[in-house]
Amino acid sequence: MKAEIISIGTELLLGQVVNSNAAYLSRELALLGIEIYHHTTVGDNPKRLIEAIKTAESRADMVVLSGGLGPTKDDITKKAVSEYLDIDLVLHEESEDKIITFHKNSHFEMPENNQLQALILKDSIALTNDNGLAAGMFLEKGDHSYILLPGPPDELEPMYDKHLKSVIVDRLLEEKALVSRVLRFFGLTEAQLADKLDKIIEAQDNPTIAIYAEDGELTVRLTAQESSEEKCNKLIDEVEKKIMKEAEEYFFGYGEKRLSDVIKDILIEQKKTITAAESLTGGAFLSSISSDLAAGSIFEGGVVTYSAEKKNQVLGVRKKTIEKYGVVSAECAIEMAEKVKDLFDADIAVSLTGAAGPSALEGNIPGTVWIGIAKENGESFAKLFHFAYKRNRNRHLSVLNALDMVRRVLTDLPIDGTTGFGEDGQTEEKQ
Amino acid sequence: MKAEIISIGTELLLGQVVNSNAAYLSRELALLGIEIYHHTTVGDNPKRLIEAIKTAESRADMVVLSGGLGPTKDDITKKAVSEYLDIDLVLHEESEDKIITFHKNSHFEMPENNQLQALILKDSIALTNDNGLAAGMFLEKGDHSYILLPGPPDELEPMYDKHLKSVIVDRLLEEKALVSRVLRFFGLTEAQLADKLDKIIEAQDNPTIAIYAEDGELTVRLTAQESSEEKCNKLIDEVEKKIMKEAEEYFFGYGEKRLSDVIKDILIEQKKTITAAESLTGGAFLSSISSDLAAGSIFEGGVVTYSAEKKNQVLGVRKKTIEKYGVVSAECAIEMAEKVKDLFDADIAVSLTGAAGPSALEGNIPGTVWIGIAKENGESFAKLFHFAYKRNRNRHLSVLNALDMVRRVLTDLPIDGTTGFGEDGQTEEKQ
Repeated sequence: MKAEIISIGTELLLGQVVNSNAAYLSRELALLGIEIYHHTTVGDNPKRLIEAIKTAESRADMVVLSGGLGPTKDDITKKAVSEYLDIDLVLHEESEDKIITFHKNSHFEMPENNQLQALILKDSIALTNDNGLAAGMFLEKGDHSYILLPGPPDELEPMYDKHLKSVIVDRLLEEKALVSRVLRFFGLTEAQLADKLDKIIEAQDNPTIAIYAEDGELTVRLTAQESSEEKCNKLIDEVEKKIMKEAEEYFFGYGEKRLSDVIKDILIEQKKTITAAESLTGGAFLSSISSDLAAGSIFEGGVVTYSAEKKNQVLGVRKKTIEKYGVVSAECAIEMAEKVKDLFDADIAVSLTGAAGPSALEGNIPGTVWIGIAKENGESFAKLFHFAYKRNRNRHLSVLNALDMVRRVLTDLPIDGTTGFGEDGQTEEKQ
Repeated sequence: MKAEIISIGTELLLGQVVNSNAAYLSRELALLGIEIYHHTTVGDNPKRLIEAIKTAESRADMVVLSGGLGPTKDDITKKAVSEYLDIDLVLHEESEDKIITFHKNSHFEMPENNQLQALILKDSIALTNDNGLAAGMFLEKGDHSYILLPGPPDELEPMYDKHLKSVIVDRLLEEKALVSRVLRFFGLTEAQLADKLDKIIEAQDNPTIAIYAEDGELTVRLTAQESSEEKCNKLIDEVEKKIMKEAEEYFFGYGEKRLSDVIKDILIEQKKTITAAESLTGGAFLSSISSDLAAGSIFEGGVVTYSAEKKNQVLGVRKKTIEKYGVVSAECAIEMAEKVKDLFDADIAVSLTGAAGPSALEGNIPGTVWIGIAKENGESFAKLFHFAYKRNRNRHLSVLNALDMVRRVLTDLPIDGTTGFGEDGQTEEKQ
């Protein structure tokens, strides 16, 4: 099956809004095996919209329209489609009720043209809008299906995911069940993961396999189509097993949860608290830990000591340590972690110290970073990283790697290449 | 003049990449008065690309193509345009030299097909690529102009800004000089600013006026076209004066510098240091201050005290203060700022304490935030904010407002609605 995406909105043609809907819908439809060869964007202009629909009909089976479903006079999509397909607009009572209730409960006055938003194409399936007032529509006519979606991504995406996807599967696809599963990985590049999974990806059929990089983390999405959910899950289980065989050491979780979410979940489950002493990352690790609602139960605070002097004065890292080993050292990282752990009475403490760049620090090239961990049993160690990017990317990767080290410590997974202290107080290489 | 943008790349149709180039180019061309009625995206397919070019030619004077200029077999744009327009590809020596030098200086082996990247359309103007190897092209043929640009935004954007824009102005526009100036504002919403500037925007002609919201900050971009730069600047000066009359109290700077950059510049210029004690923002303020290269000279560190207990133990906020006023109070904010100022020997200190949401804290509704400032003369005060968004947006707005308070203090601008302490130690409302 072929689809074509038409985005409607003068704000897109003025560049005030980036068209993320076309990318989202393309990604999702590709997972259903639906092919897309064209995206088109037009303004709030009925003539040009109808031309675009005609062209799309000549090339595709499914015409997906996004934008122009709102209550203002710019919102032309419904009316244009109604006229072009010669299908009446009829009142959708559920939508009307929703609009009336919304205005009752808010301080906004009900606009006169509110009924316009409650109209849908006759014989279409109305798609619920969980984050707005305009319903979407799915319509079949002749050889074509037509889909009308709202423009704001926070309305369009849940509408697709929760309401439209099942309608497409049910009405247009042969196999009636569709299951997706997302696996999340950290600690290697997208190219490295693709390389590890090369043969599995080559041989993919059902489920399909898609790898995405997302801000330093990687996701692998498996999507199966079969006659039942059970059969889908069985197919996915088999491929997941093969993937894990190649890359399990980098796997950290399923679904939407990021590395920082996974760690917060583990801390809550284990009833533990965390703290950090940050140098080059300047508060970014603490900020990522405290972004969650449950921050209060796992986190009482932490310290940013950017200068060597304050590492000593505020945290209590010994002057001797800094003089002998420098601030970019296992010794300094370990003392920072131990001291901040005591200061905040935490179960686990992290430290980050290094040269973010662009200049070197104590002769260490930019991107040289020591991450330290102090554990509740008194054990502590540090690991050396070399990041080869610009300053803020190096800082971000430092935070992600610190989170991953915490995850490994909390779940008793090995961490390669760490440096700790032996019984004689001397530095020793571990593992 | 009308233009049409055609984006080329199968990765766009698969949704792996969001098409930010179409938005960027639309925004920029609109500033030159060039109108755009269609965006089209096709994959790496010569037949569909040529169809799209034909359609664009029938509707527009200028056809802008982005993507498909690289060295791999997917990169079809140059060849397709060459065949369609019947214009030969010829070697561009400057590009060839660049490619050879790049491979000499890197560990990458020179690919056999490297010469492909050094070919340009005969009689086109080559556009330098500051961040990559593929040159862009500007070509005039018959009634149309054709522009070929690389796909990666970090190559396309500087190519447009530094090389293509002047060619378009020179070759296609009547007025030969074009000047843009960006004014930056903070402390009101986009709608409020648009409202204040309503009449000026209505009457706009030359310069054009464009307002954008960017992560809580606002920019107003003025673009003038005239026969000389001097005349452009004069026209812009006049409109800027009118804008300042309406909104000067919210203005914080020119050009690309964000609020945090402006503050860092002021601190460096005044040779002052800053610190912060953060509660609800959990390190985000400190992180924004330390993201800059010059962080070391203005910043020695700071503290995150999320729990009430640590506000007392680590920072030294008095238990009495917390018991009597709570942590969401002017008194607690002021003590946090004063204590962290001493701890880090800073010239100015900021504190942030409040209820980020979604739950209330000490009976304060989510979004209730006190931001405190301690100054070098010993004076300190706090200001109350009510943000009405979700947790992370409330946190972000807290950071921005704290930055703006610092800017106002450092440049002796008034801050409305602050609470300080009188000589009798009693709270008093200021201003």
